[in-house]
Amino acid sequence: MSKIVARVLKGFRDYMPANMLPKERMLRQVAGVFESFGFAPLQTPALEYADCLLGKYGDEGDKLLYRFRDNGDRDVAMRYDLTVPLARVVAMNGNLTRPFKRYQIAPVWRAEKPGRGRFREFMQCDVDIIGSTDMMADAECLAVGAAVLERLGVDDFVIRINNRKLLTAMLARFDISEGEPAMSVLRAIDKLPKIGEEKVRVLLRDENHLSPGAIDGIFEFLSLPAADLDAWFEGDETGRLGAEELNTVLKLADELGVGDKVEIDLSIARGLDYYTGTIYETFLKADESLGSVMSGGRYDDLLSMFGGAGVPAVGISLGVDRLVYGLMELGLLESQQSPTQVLVGVFSDEERTLSYGVASKLRAAGITAEVYPGTPRMKKQLQYANRQGIAHVALIGKTEAETGQVLLKNMETGQQDTVTIDGLIELLTR
Amino acid sequence: MSKIVARVLKGFRDYMPANMLPKERMLRQVAGVFESFGFAPLQTPALEYADCLLGKYGDEGDKLLYRFRDNGDRDVAMRYDLTVPLARVVAMNGNLTRPFKRYQIAPVWRAEKPGRGRFREFMQCDVDIIGSTDMMADAECLAVGAAVLERLGVDDFVIRINNRKLLTAMLARFDISEGEPAMSVLRAIDKLPKIGEEKVRVLLRDENHLSPGAIDGIFEFLSLPAADLDAWFEGDETGRLGAEELNTVLKLADELGVGDKVEIDLSIARGLDYYTGTIYETFLKADESLGSVMSGGRYDDLLSMFGGAGVPAVGISLGVDRLVYGLMELGLLESQQSPTQVLVGVFSDEERTLSYGVASKLRAAGITAEVYPGTPRMKKQLQYANRQGIAHVALIGKTEAETGQVLLKNMETGQQDTVTIDGLIELLTR
Repeated sequence: MSKIVARVLKGFRDYMPANMLPKERMLRQVAGVFESFGFAPLQTPALEYADCLLGKYGDEGDKLLYRFRDNGDRDVAMRYDLTVPLARVVAMNGNLTRPFKRYQIAPVWRAEKPGRGRFREFMQCDVDIIGSTDMMADAECLAVGAAVLERLGVDDFVIRINNRKLLTAMLARFDISEGEPAMSVLRAIDKLPKIGEEKVRVLLRDENHLSPGAIDGIFEFLSLPAADLDAWFEGDETGRLGAEELNTVLKLADELGVGDKVEIDLSIARGLDYYTGTIYETFLKADESLGSVMSGGRYDDLLSMFGGAGVPAVGISLGVDRLVYGLMELGLLESQQSPTQVLVGVFSDEERTLSYGVASKLRAAGITAEVYPGTPRMKKQLQYANRQGIAHVALIGKTEAETGQVLLKNMETGQQDTVTIDGLIELLTR
Repeated sequence: MSKIVARVLKGFRDYMPANMLPKERMLRQVAGVFESFGFAPLQTPALEYADCLLGKYGDEGDKLLYRFRDNGDRDVAMRYDLTVPLARVVAMNGNLTRPFKRYQIAPVWRAEKPGRGRFREFMQCDVDIIGSTDMMADAECLAVGAAVLERLGVDDFVIRINNRKLLTAMLARFDISEGEPAMSVLRAIDKLPKIGEEKVRVLLRDENHLSPGAIDGIFEFLSLPAADLDAWFEGDETGRLGAEELNTVLKLADELGVGDKVEIDLSIARGLDYYTGTIYETFLKADESLGSVMSGGRYDDLLSMFGGAGVPAVGISLGVDRLVYGLMELGLLESQQSPTQVLVGVFSDEERTLSYGVASKLRAAGITAEVYPGTPRMKKQLQYANRQGIAHVALIGKTEAETGQVLLKNMETGQQDTVTIDGLIELLTR
């Protein structure tokens, strides 16, 4: 073996413990909320036959697939999102009990140009309800999303909702063709919060070649009060249905107790072309510039690409990395070097078993505890606790052993107290 | 988009909720035990530069890599195990606090011939201590492994330990060259529990071309009582050191309270060539034919392939799929279709908010609860509960709403009781 330079693949990254501990803690809470609403985990392979993924993400997406020939000369590609594999699973399992409520938290891979905060491997976290056309399913996705954010300690957020049918009807009114022309206009509208009206107007004129009248009409639509939607779409069945659905979801969100978190925003467009009804994005009010931390919508036609008959579906997706960043900004999540609450110090080989015994007792009480392997000088053990950010060191000498106590050192304040083991447990579990 | 046949890539599989729920539950418990001992999670990318993986798993391993050229013409490969990426991380991060105690639970990919229970994507679950030569680290890996099994409800298991130095010294005595010849003999010995002495003797004769004397000598060694090791290796420094290490680990395991779970087995060889000291495998006594559910050892030279100076390391790895299978056999883990404990039924749209309110209250109390979206006939809702294996259905009609009660139907027994919501919570959380 020749010596190889150890390095991480371009566009990829290691998650070191300090970042991984809070992320894992967050994802466990998220999964817990999903399960509390009856969503069950599904796991699909990292690799799929390429033809199962190709053509689902547009030409641009196809180019970003990690696609190769495997050892058996099969044309394969790495997972690009969690939605198409879900569609495949539903297409392959016709006898699934419906509604099929699943969540999946897993990495996806996209060969995008890496940039600040943009990586070629990132975690997706999706929750979907398959097989129900009822708008209550749309509202439940809002409710579970809101419950997730509340569980993570975020109170001040807004879920902006819209309905793709409104956008479709609006675009049709200005003679913008379905398919790529329409999607391109929606992607321009989607940029509104980031680049502002002026620049979106320029995009619509120069890239989409819209007339000044069409551009004005689009912005007239975008500024409509919800109450005027019916009038604006009078006689337009698609538009009228979109307005009705939007109102129904709002009403049901109210019933589910999340009405105060939801507001209509006609400029929410979502770049993906598979949405057919409700669409939503979620912003933390403390930092809207972070972008949407939770997005999704109804996509009643996606499954037809595999399955023949269309299967209704609605879901939301958490932007895991963005959310971790936002929670850290808000002080709701902290990077953490070590899960250990107590380092149990060892004075000598003879007293070692005492220390290990105390560590065991702490663990049995649900407290994370470790002992430095071997018996280096106490200074080194304390140094380790310091570098690892371990808050407490428990010392057990002969005296403490005889009285069943430990000398507890608070590594932040430096304060030392003699406490019983039960006292220590009480202190750390309260 | 033309219609594509939905199918799973050969050698891969979907984990449907019924299998994924218990697996996730198990892995959460495992991670909890790891963290209780102070191990922190690390995450490395699915893709690595191929040269970082090549040559680490032997010629056979190199052939099994999913290796390809990415869009930037980089020679890349998918993760084959969790140990080499760990070595890469340690080599790249010279300032890591030591001991560096990390765990990683993640899929790996190997293009092996798929077979019964053998897949090309499978989960690995590793815990390692990097940077300590102290044998207490070896013993702590035994202790954390034992704690994992105990946490999962398994009491009756045995961790068989050996020391690679003993095997190295023994092979040298019979003039078996280091490297591939030695490894090939060790792999033959490793098959002993599966194929028996007779067939291993044939392998050693026909494939390793050992003399009858060497073969007899190997089996003499394998049947040595631990007390005779020192005498057998008299004057052989490597062998003597191996015996001493083995005894030390046993003594320390005793100190850590897991001595009764550990026994010496000189035939434990581990097929991988990077082990340098302690090696171990773990068997469930109820089904030893399942094979080892938890294996590992000390590998003090692995990191040198990246880092220059060798860094000591010791770890264990859980065989996740095997363990799930074993736990299911033992009745300690059950497949489960849905996480939901209570389906809250809805009689009519008017009473819907009552049902959603009850579901919210249950969730706030830590009980998983769901409501069928829309308001289909009650028969359909009960059918859903049945098919999903949901144990309880709570019905709230006008009467119940007025009295703050629910009609609780036990779906297994069919029994119905009128209970208060607090009573229901008490019933399901006790």
